[in-house]
Amino acid sequence: MNTNPNGRIYTAGLVIIGDEILSGRTHDKNIAQVASWLQVQGIRLTEVRVVADVQDRIVDAVNSLRASYDYLFTTGGIGPTHDDITVDAVAQALSVPVVIHPEAREILERYYADKGGTNEGRLRMARVPEGAELIPNRMSGAPGIKIGNVFLMAGVPHITAGMLDALTGTLEGGARLLSETIGCWVPESEVADLLREAERAHDSCQIGSYPFFRSGHVGANFVVRSTEADALAHCVAALCEGLSERGYDFTPGGI
Amino acid sequence: MNTNPNGRIYTAGLVIIGDEILSGRTHDKNIAQVASWLQVQGIRLTEVRVVADVQDRIVDAVNSLRASYDYLFTTGGIGPTHDDITVDAVAQALSVPVVIHPEAREILERYYADKGGTNEGRLRMARVPEGAELIPNRMSGAPGIKIGNVFLMAGVPHITAGMLDALTGTLEGGARLLSETIGCWVPESEVADLLREAERAHDSCQIGSYPFFRSGHVGANFVVRSTEADALAHCVAALCEGLSERGYDFTPGGI
Repeated sequence: MNTNPNGRIYTAGLVIIGDEILSGRTHDKNIAQVASWLQVQGIRLTEVRVVADVQDRIVDAVNSLRASYDYLFTTGGIGPTHDDITVDAVAQALSVPVVIHPEAREILERYYADKGGTNEGRLRMARVPEGAELIPNRMSGAPGIKIGNVFLMAGVPHITAGMLDALTGTLEGGARLLSETIGCWVPESEVADLLREAERAHDSCQIGSYPFFRSGHVGANFVVRSTEADALAHCVAALCEGLSERGYDFTPGGI
Repeated sequence: MNTNPNGRIYTAGLVIIGDEILSGRTHDKNIAQVASWLQVQGIRLTEVRVVADVQDRIVDAVNSLRASYDYLFTTGGIGPTHDDITVDAVAQALSVPVVIHPEAREILERYYADKGGTNEGRLRMARVPEGAELIPNRMSGAPGIKIGNVFLMAGVPHITAGMLDALTGTLEGGARLLSETIGCWVPESEVADLLREAERAHDSCQIGSYPFFRSGHVGANFVVRSTEADALAHCVAALCEGLSERGYDFTPGGI
């Protein structure tokens, strides 16, 4: 299913390091932005783990996901404070020492020159797992870090966005996953058989059903996904025809 | 750290089943609401995994987290359509068959009596892993499911909220994790040493630092957490004193 012409599907995992997410204090915004960005690169976000700011937990998650997927992204824990331990955890996961990256140090010294200069906390952000390259940070001083297939990014969403932007077009991906959404004011349970049949009849397509309840009415968005534009169009057409035959109006693009 | 009087910390894992989250189409709202609800029950959300609607992936995540933590919650994949496979996956993980729950069937027949009656899709929602109990759903027909330490809940956030509400006070938990937040218009990198020292000097406390950038200025919220009220108060006082000594104003309760 969803294969591109050369049959290669590129996948990624994401590890979110953040006590603030697990406490419910902060609503995560990085899953959606990393997922959307990866889709444009032709890479499929396949698993996310949110772990606490505990080194062993980060090491386990990093080792599990970097081996399972083509790419592994992390967000959070690369700042200047004592609870920022992602660099140490990734170095441990990769069995390499933590070293000072000379270019990162220069960037930080330049960035903080008119902000009171560097100090111990600020220079923590020049620490990288040995062998790492830097990911430009267009928003603030401290760069992101790339080592092997692991990409360490900031936790603050707008800084992460800038790092993703800097990486755009640099990763090898496959065919982009295409999708079309059809919205319908119908309880999904009334058309479950139709959805199943439409998916079965179109090999390279997947159909997701996402119910909602708005303004006192029940509805659902049906999202058809495929890497093949023709198959996608046929499946969408079949689904729309099925809805029409049963007397349901639908809204292309979703509700 | 953060032990309650009898030394027992209660933990939970959360598995979010949802292609719609991994595609970036839908912003997750369940992590924060499950986390906040658990805190009130004296249970700490310790790990979250977001996995695709693929049975083996769900089975792996369920088996890993139900063994690692006191409780495991899942959201998503218990509806009427073909992509709702959480019940099958949890049954496989627990090595039990899927059976029809008579009470769930009655609930669904009642709920759909004036909505066109039940059909194959709707009756899928009466399927449970053998030995399961139901979690009341006050919002729509299909109940949640409890089996052993595993709780299967809806993916739609307001339905999940109702199921959590029905479970309030029914789970054994420990001392509630208390927290206080101090906001300060300071780059966290200027006070990283102060944060580290305050945490080190207060054994049962953890300090998280959450930077932000608003209205053109850099600031941070420092969140001190402990299950012990006295220790929390001492740590907060020490941190506030340290900020004052360095000439920083701060905002109790956070910015």
